[in-house]
Amino acid sequence: MKLLDGKKTSTEIKEEIKLKVTAIKTAGERVPHLAAVLVGDDGASLTYVGSKVRSCKYVGFESTLIRLEEDITEEALLLKIDELNQNENIDGYIVQLPLPKHINEERVLLAIDPKKDVDGFHPANFGRMALDLDAFIPATPFGIIQLLERYEVPTSGKHCLVVGRSHIVGRPISILMSQKGPAGDATVTLAHSRTQNLKSLTKQADIVVMALGIPEFLTADMVKEGVTVIDVGITRVADESHPKGYVIKGDVAFDEVAAKANYITPVPGGVGPMTIAMLLQNTLLAKQWNQS
Amino acid sequence: MKLLDGKKTSTEIKEEIKLKVTAIKTAGERVPHLAAVLVGDDGASLTYVGSKVRSCKYVGFESTLIRLEEDITEEALLLKIDELNQNENIDGYIVQLPLPKHINEERVLLAIDPKKDVDGFHPANFGRMALDLDAFIPATPFGIIQLLERYEVPTSGKHCLVVGRSHIVGRPISILMSQKGPAGDATVTLAHSRTQNLKSLTKQADIVVMALGIPEFLTADMVKEGVTVIDVGITRVADESHPKGYVIKGDVAFDEVAAKANYITPVPGGVGPMTIAMLLQNTLLAKQWNQS
Repeated sequence: MKLLDGKKTSTEIKEEIKLKVTAIKTAGERVPHLAAVLVGDDGASLTYVGSKVRSCKYVGFESTLIRLEEDITEEALLLKIDELNQNENIDGYIVQLPLPKHINEERVLLAIDPKKDVDGFHPANFGRMALDLDAFIPATPFGIIQLLERYEVPTSGKHCLVVGRSHIVGRPISILMSQKGPAGDATVTLAHSRTQNLKSLTKQADIVVMALGIPEFLTADMVKEGVTVIDVGITRVADESHPKGYVIKGDVAFDEVAAKANYITPVPGGVGPMTIAMLLQNTLLAKQWNQS
Repeated sequence: MKLLDGKKTSTEIKEEIKLKVTAIKTAGERVPHLAAVLVGDDGASLTYVGSKVRSCKYVGFESTLIRLEEDITEEALLLKIDELNQNENIDGYIVQLPLPKHINEERVLLAIDPKKDVDGFHPANFGRMALDLDAFIPATPFGIIQLLERYEVPTSGKHCLVVGRSHIVGRPISILMSQKGPAGDATVTLAHSRTQNLKSLTKQADIVVMALGIPEFLTADMVKEGVTVIDVGITRVADESHPKGYVIKGDVAFDEVAAKANYITPVPGGVGPMTIAMLLQNTLLAKQWNQS
């Protein structure tokens, strides 16, 4: 069994980006600049955004955190979005979700200039990705592709089962893995809440991508020997014995499945750490693409 | 066995559109207007475009055929596209493919205003479709969905195998059938040239969509009893005994597969006739969406 170590791989990617930033500086150019918009002061969102800003600092990017009041009107937020679209010093930006209930999330995401949409949530990016054109790929599927590619996990002609059809993980990874290219050319099945006989599907699959959000759902009896397992689940499960009062669980019963797997991602330390690295990668791409 | 009769269904859809056009006229409004751009004088393209223009007349749409010389420059064509984007009297338009080799097809398709892209080939439309937003759906997959829906073929929780990953058929139908909604909620597997053991997949499937372009590829031994088969293939096969010198063959060995199937589309008269009806439907939608 080989561990697909997202912590190590994401660090490598960040080091690669750092080197590129140094080269950019040496060439006398402006470094990539990521902005993040945070509305309100939800604890989890603050943590995520904070971690993104710190990662920018680490690789040498410029970063700007724009904090807006919880009760900001949709119009005022859209004006801010327009400012960011116009600001030539900002290469890419994200709007941290969820937004307060009085704001139409879809309208806000559609207002982001696709050229600066480093989260890859805008339909123009999603469509470009699905049609094999250059695009910002959402961070989680982009991170999965990187892990598979860097560990040279065979995918061509393999049967890959993706469990979960969300717009930010299941759907895009099902598209990417069935396209030509790195970590691609797989025969992909997309399963979801309406799927019947899921176990007969997981047992056939050479690669299983779990993006369901149900802790330890995938057990050893559901997979075949030599399977590759990518675990996208991150659920907080109450655990009094832990100082934080909870532990993070993936969608996979790790120990028992690992015993049968050729490759497997741990949780934490698998797909999770890859997402911020890929957000940085998209920001670097934004600077390159918008300049040319 | 029930035949999914595309000829009959497309006629029904055209009649429905005709009624809506009559209502539009009665309300004193302008009728929908479709334009088609044809570069050069390729025989097959002329036939397709001619048939689209005739269908417009039939349902009462206004239509404009713009014929351009084979040796038109890309710049001149892009200017024409821009004119069409600006022209408020045109609700939607198509650029008949293929374009001459000296013209970059991708650049031309990306220049079409997504709001008028009734072929649904622009990434902005493709992304909207994949993210469950209102979108122009490419005519062939849209036609398949309509057939499944109008014949009330069960799809929810069924295993659907799509063979072929083209951008205009295989990829979009694989997305649509796995989404929530009419003719949706299926567990979809997308197979393609790199797929191994295709026969073991076709034999498991409740629904098989063939979009491969290999005449009579799918045979009775490859499917299970009670299967639903959608045949998107249209290949001209030389046949001296026929007045035209060829016959049109689908990807399915119809007679033997039909004997095992619950539902099946014939070729010709299945998916083919649906495409023009759905182009008209998209043009009607374009007028509605662009007005509101």
